[in-house]
Amino acid sequence: MSKTDAPPLWVDLPQFRAGMRRLAGAVTLITTSYQGEKQGLTASAVCSLTADPPLLLVCVNKSASAHDPISESNFFAVNVLAADQIGMAQVFSDTARTAERFKMGDWTTGITGAPLLKGALVTFDCEIEQRVAKGTHTIFIGLVKGVHLGENPASLIYFNGSFGTFGSLPPG
Amino acid sequence: MSKTDAPPLWVDLPQFRAGMRRLAGAVTLITTSYQGEKQGLTASAVCSLTADPPLLLVCVNKSASAHDPISESNFFAVNVLAADQIGMAQVFSDTARTAERFKMGDWTTGITGAPLLKGALVTFDCEIEQRVAKGTHTIFIGLVKGVHLGENPASLIYFNGSFGTFGSLPPG
Repeated sequence: MSKTDAPPLWVDLPQFRAGMRRLAGAVTLITTSYQGEKQGLTASAVCSLTADPPLLLVCVNKSASAHDPISESNFFAVNVLAADQIGMAQVFSDTARTAERFKMGDWTTGITGAPLLKGALVTFDCEIEQRVAKGTHTIFIGLVKGVHLGENPASLIYFNGSFGTFGSLPPG
Repeated sequence: MSKTDAPPLWVDLPQFRAGMRRLAGAVTLITTSYQGEKQGLTASAVCSLTADPPLLLVCVNKSASAHDPISESNFFAVNVLAADQIGMAQVFSDTARTAERFKMGDWTTGITGAPLLKGALVTFDCEIEQRVAKGTHTIFIGLVKGVHLGENPASLIYFNGSFGTFGSLPPG
């Protein structure tokens, strides 16, 4: 069989990454607490799943330090960052600054036990309903047991390698 | 057992919806072609899953007219809308305008067979790799076989019930 004649099985990594850079999205901190220790990471792969019951999903890399604590604790919160919380996104995505993560910001505890960030645009306090393992990642499906709306109504948004916020469409 | 003393099992629908309104996201058209007929819907529940292999996922309501065609055809495209394509988002989310959907815009066909929208911010041409049924919805996991970057680099974004685009953060 000639390998050169076969169509590619899928796109290569640079193509996929270039495409995904164009998928704008909210910036969230996924947090949990396991054996008395708070853990978390910055994530953009979060979406609504069903409304009744209220389910959402997050995709977490198995290599992330918070992956196993999330899975073991059986709960997590999705803290959707407000536009003025860019510093939190940076600390939670920097593996060299793990120790700083929960020293920044004001945190409370949700009914599941998950850390909730005060001032977040919205937090979803979730119990894990199902795990779907898929290659390097796990899809955690969360049943939403608490929703908390923050006072800052402006969203932090990540797009094309930059942080920004929601803006009006140009007229026309 | 007293029902009144038990903590709520989960949040109610208005609370969940109010929270989800604050999850900003890209606006996409999920499209397929089945038995010679193009089908599609507007969706925001799309996210990256793994990079190697390149997988993404979309959550589609089982009651959507395009749900079964997507599942049966075994392929779909994610057409991420550019800021000037708000009209496409509106037509693809209006069940009274099904007949207009593929008459608007310029369409080509991807290597999977899925309709690709010209002028989209980016399109992901996917083969279905796995289906996860969850209540009212199906999570379709797609293996990305083609990525096409459009020329318009501005993203359409949906947030808090409105369409807009990516804007700069206020200084400070």
